[in-house]
Amino acid sequence: MELHGIFPYLVSPLDERGRVRADVLARLVRHLIDCGVHGLSPLGSTGEAPYLSPAQREAVVAATIAAADGRVPVVPAVTAFATAEAVAEAQRYRRAGAAALVVNLQRYFPLDRAAVRDFYRAVAAEVDCPLVLYANPALTGVDLTPDLLAELADLPNVRYFKDATGSTGRILSVLERTGGRLRAFAASAHVPLLVLQLGGVGWMAGPACLLPRECVRLYDLAVAGRWQEAWALQRRLWRLNEVFQRHALAACVKAGLQLQGWEVGAPLPPQRPLGADALAEVRAALAAAAGEPA
Amino acid sequence: MELHGIFPYLVSPLDERGRVRADVLARLVRHLIDCGVHGLSPLGSTGEAPYLSPAQREAVVAATIAAADGRVPVVPAVTAFATAEAVAEAQRYRRAGAAALVVNLQRYFPLDRAAVRDFYRAVAAEVDCPLVLYANPALTGVDLTPDLLAELADLPNVRYFKDATGSTGRILSVLERTGGRLRAFAASAHVPLLVLQLGGVGWMAGPACLLPRECVRLYDLAVAGRWQEAWALQRRLWRLNEVFQRHALAACVKAGLQLQGWEVGAPLPPQRPLGADALAEVRAALAAAAGEPA
Amino acid sequence: MELHGIFPYLVSPLDERGRVRADVLARLVRHLIDCGVHGLSPLGSTGEAPYLSPAQREAVVAATIAAADGRVPVVPAVTAFATAEAVAEAQRYRRAGAAALVVNLQRYFPLDRAAVRDFYRAVAAEVDCPLVLYANPALTGVDLTPDLLAELADLPNVRYFKDATGSTGRILSVLERTGGRLRAFAASAHVPLLVLQLGGVGWMAGPACLLPRECVRLYDLAVAGRWQEAWALQRRLWRLNEVFQRHALAACVKAGLQLQGWEVGAPLPPQRPLGADALAEVRAALAAAAGEPA
Amino acid sequence: MELHGIFPYLVSPLDERGRVRADVLARLVRHLIDCGVHGLSPLGSTGEAPYLSPAQREAVVAATIAAADGRVPVVPAVTAFATAEAVAEAQRYRRAGAAALVVNLQRYFPLDRAAVRDFYRAVAAEVDCPLVLYANPALTGVDLTPDLLAELADLPNVRYFKDATGSTGRILSVLERTGGRLRAFAASAHVPLLVLQLGGVGWMAGPACLLPRECVRLYDLAVAGRWQEAWALQRRLWRLNEVFQRHALAACVKAGLQLQGWEVGAPLPPQRPLGADALAEVRAALAAAAGEPA
Repeated sequence: MELHGIFPYLVSPLDERGRVRADVLARLVRHLIDCGVHGLSPLGSTGEAPYLSPAQREAVVAATIAAADGRVPVVPAVTAFATAEAVAEAQRYRRAGAAALVVNLQRYFPLDRAAVRDFYRAVAAEVDCPLVLYANPALTGVDLTPDLLAELADLPNVRYFKDATGSTGRILSVLERTGGRLRAFAASAHVPLLVLQLGGVGWMAGPACLLPRECVRLYDLAVAGRWQEAWALQRRLWRLNEVFQRHALAACVKAGLQLQGWEVGAPLPPQRPLGADALAEVRAALAAAAGEPA
Repeated sequence: MELHGIFPYLVSPLDERGRVRADVLARLVRHLIDCGVHGLSPLGSTGEAPYLSPAQREAVVAATIAAADGRVPVVPAVTAFATAEAVAEAQRYRRAGAAALVVNLQRYFPLDRAAVRDFYRAVAAEVDCPLVLYANPALTGVDLTPDLLAELADLPNVRYFKDATGSTGRILSVLERTGGRLRAFAASAHVPLLVLQLGGVGWMAGPACLLPRECVRLYDLAVAGRWQEAWALQRRLWRLNEVFQRHALAACVKAGLQLQGWEVGAPLPPQRPLGADALAEVRAALAAAAGEPA
Repeated sequence: MELHGIFPYLVSPLDERGRVRADVLARLVRHLIDCGVHGLSPLGSTGEAPYLSPAQREAVVAATIAAADGRVPVVPAVTAFATAEAVAEAQRYRRAGAAALVVNLQRYFPLDRAAVRDFYRAVAAEVDCPLVLYANPALTGVDLTPDLLAELADLPNVRYFKDATGSTGRILSVLERTGGRLRAFAASAHVPLLVLQLGGVGWMAGPACLLPRECVRLYDLAVAGRWQEAWALQRRLWRLNEVFQRHALAACVKAGLQLQGWEVGAPLPPQRPLGADALAEVRAALAAAAGEPA
Repeated sequence: MELHGIFPYLVSPLDERGRVRADVLARLVRHLIDCGVHGLSPLGSTGEAPYLSPAQREAVVAATIAAADGRVPVVPAVTAFATAEAVAEAQRYRRAGAAALVVNLQRYFPLDRAAVRDFYRAVAAEVDCPLVLYANPALTGVDLTPDLLAELADLPNVRYFKDATGSTGRILSVLERTGGRLRAFAASAHVPLLVLQLGGVGWMAGPACLLPRECVRLYDLAVAGRWQEAWALQRRLWRLNEVFQRHALAACVKAGLQLQGWEVGAPLPPQRPLGADALAEVRAALAAAAGEPA
């Protein structure tokens, strides 16, 4: 199986007592699949994994997989400091039915390149599904440079990477060094259509929760080589990415979903809900995107 | 009760299967108390909390409190991303017998000042013991500026702070702005004796695991106003702090304890044990400190 | 006149006594024009302006303009801390025959957004030619965010920007916010072809000194919409950009030119010439690019 | 001659046409000497050297030396990107009568440790007076680590260093590694009295322009070992340092001098004068310091 296309990074809706709202999540999952998304990624950055207990994380993954019901692949993100924790979590999600895994290493004490490499090797050795290596140094303190990604691409189940630095040239560097063996997913810091033009296979990110049809259409237009229409759409969608870059990601996506009527709750404290100005920016960006007639 | 003096930041010894080696930890705890330390702080940075599961963290705290047996206060560190997690953990440690708590907020998504303040307010409201607010922006991504600390000092159980930035003037700023209401503990990035000269009440850090007698003596000399002897000792001890600044903290303390015969194991992966050069630096720094005749 | 196309960022060749080697520079200029470049930019980052005295800077500009002899526009870069220095330098270069100017603000003390805006406004008011605003926060400490560029785009002669951050999405943001009024030049941290696909008008940078024909061909293919050939060429060229990102820019370009037989000398001390490994990388990257049959 | 004591970092007063106001500077110099300062440092950070032309820099140094009239040593700061520029400037200031020189390397392209070392070696070899090596990585991009300072301390005229990082332990590290051969000056980011307690020989910085008597008294009390009085004074003075850390240095010192009636003008554009709030902070900090009865 090859992963490709639009993978919304799901939010994690909790009630006031900290219980996962599986009902809300299930409805959101079915809605997104109905809109044509190609897969789902719970517990990615948007999913606030560092703010969840192990039990909450498992409940989110289980609810997603149950609601997806085999219609699209579910690719949860493993976010961890310790190798042992990452391996255990990866195995749990895999047993729960994950098709593949995003793997996101966090740093407390500084890690040299060999330590980062060893972490990914250990996880890759202990799970039997494709892995998406996730580089988001601004949030995790760990960078996956093109050199390191090229080295890790030798592992048979290291198959994809997602770069969140916004430096689009890094994606070209990885594709060149790995002869295309490592495939790229866009993150919202990049212009997704540029990543697709570079040969990327899809886009994993929060905005697709809010604009699933438009994101799927962007991907379809790119695959069809209808670049002019694709660019017109991309330009309308970009404004939402800009909002996400200015404000905290989970707060933005949860706020946008609430504007759309989804009871996903606030970002988990001490994160704060968006203020009025930022909320207005989200609303305006969603309206701008809806200029799309398709 | 007023916290004061030398609080070793304990390591977290695990066996190969990830079980806390309570026996090793208990012997180390009794040894440190026998050497005169004034308290113990499990799960501080040196304790690798982000690399431990909730159950492992609890086992470390329980073993420390049991071994301390009421001879000195035990002040575990709560290290968390989410407010709810911090509150729950703080309450658990308090019920287990913690005399006070170090509180250390980690960041994934950016937090504004109000968010950091709300986090500490929430924790302070939900536990009934003194708190040590811990600023270590290099490791956590969260800074506690003098302004923010001054604001939080109004909470009745916010009583101490520990600054790990190395900017010693910040400590003076906090002391001045709070009229001394917030009391300072040195971290290893500072020259502890300078912090004591500024009016600090003690030193919480990893080196005291390796050199407990010397650290206690430094504190005693400062309290007695025997500054000349204190400075002679401080200069010998400083070299160990320098090693700690160059290399990862937990790796250094665990390596040093192993050199001294303590079976505390390696730092938790993906952290790597010190290389040969760094190990030689630790050995040399310990030897330099042992030049102390007292 | 509209600036467009390939503008090599020229090196500044000095002899051992610090005199500008106008003869070498003139031959290089004529060679580059013969290769088809659309303009020339002396004193850009590659030109080591911060390492030159005012007199050396003027000599570089004068030699370039003389050698270009009106065949292509010369667009020197003004690099300055002080507004007064920037204005005076801009006026001098303009009088010397500059067709337009790159303007690059450096920071010593922190500058707020209003200060940066005032700087650019002052320069724009005092010279009568088009300006290229240059954002290179890693080298100068000053960022020109899309918000600030959009604000400055109201000035009649602020017509172009060059972004060196590598975050390609920023370029789209500026184009969107200014309705295309501000036109984009790629820098080497971006994949130039992606910038052209976004609507960028050219590429200003050091690699074009070394591979002028290939860079011009890349631009021509893009303008002709021959994207498949353009991408094949871009992939071969990208490796040189990668080398430039790993090593100091001026050292790389001077080393590459020396490999090609140009006596441009070493980068100015305390910069050091490339070491043997880096030099081998430059040589390999040039060879990779030369795989181009065209 | 040994440098020691309080060295105000002088401002550079210019008139509207950019001419150095030698009259204002001369009066300020005489006033400061009358207040007991031990030396004067023109063109240090406070002196805005990066914002001045070579001719303006020379005029500032000449006016300072003339006004000092041999009563105290004048120690201008050389601030440069290029080795050749630093050497030439150092030689000019030396010929003009400088007793010693502060040397401050700026970075445009990244410099490795060997490049920084070579720069300082070259300057030290070409001038015959004592040098104060200045580490201010936040403003210059160049760090002088304790390791590098220890290496450079072998040069006969490298005699002093000034550390502006605020990490007071670094000063102890340098003193320890050089066996005290390299002597320390405090910068305003440190608590000057702590640096004196560590064995530092003085304080070079902007606040001494505004509070020369108080700064001299602080030094005298420290030399006399009257620490209790010294600390009472230090605490009153610290508030001014805090203001300097929050706002741009030259803007603060020029604003404070203007409050005191000195016509030193505004900071050089694009720097902006302090806003009303910051100005109120300066005024309050000066008043707090004046609580000093001595």
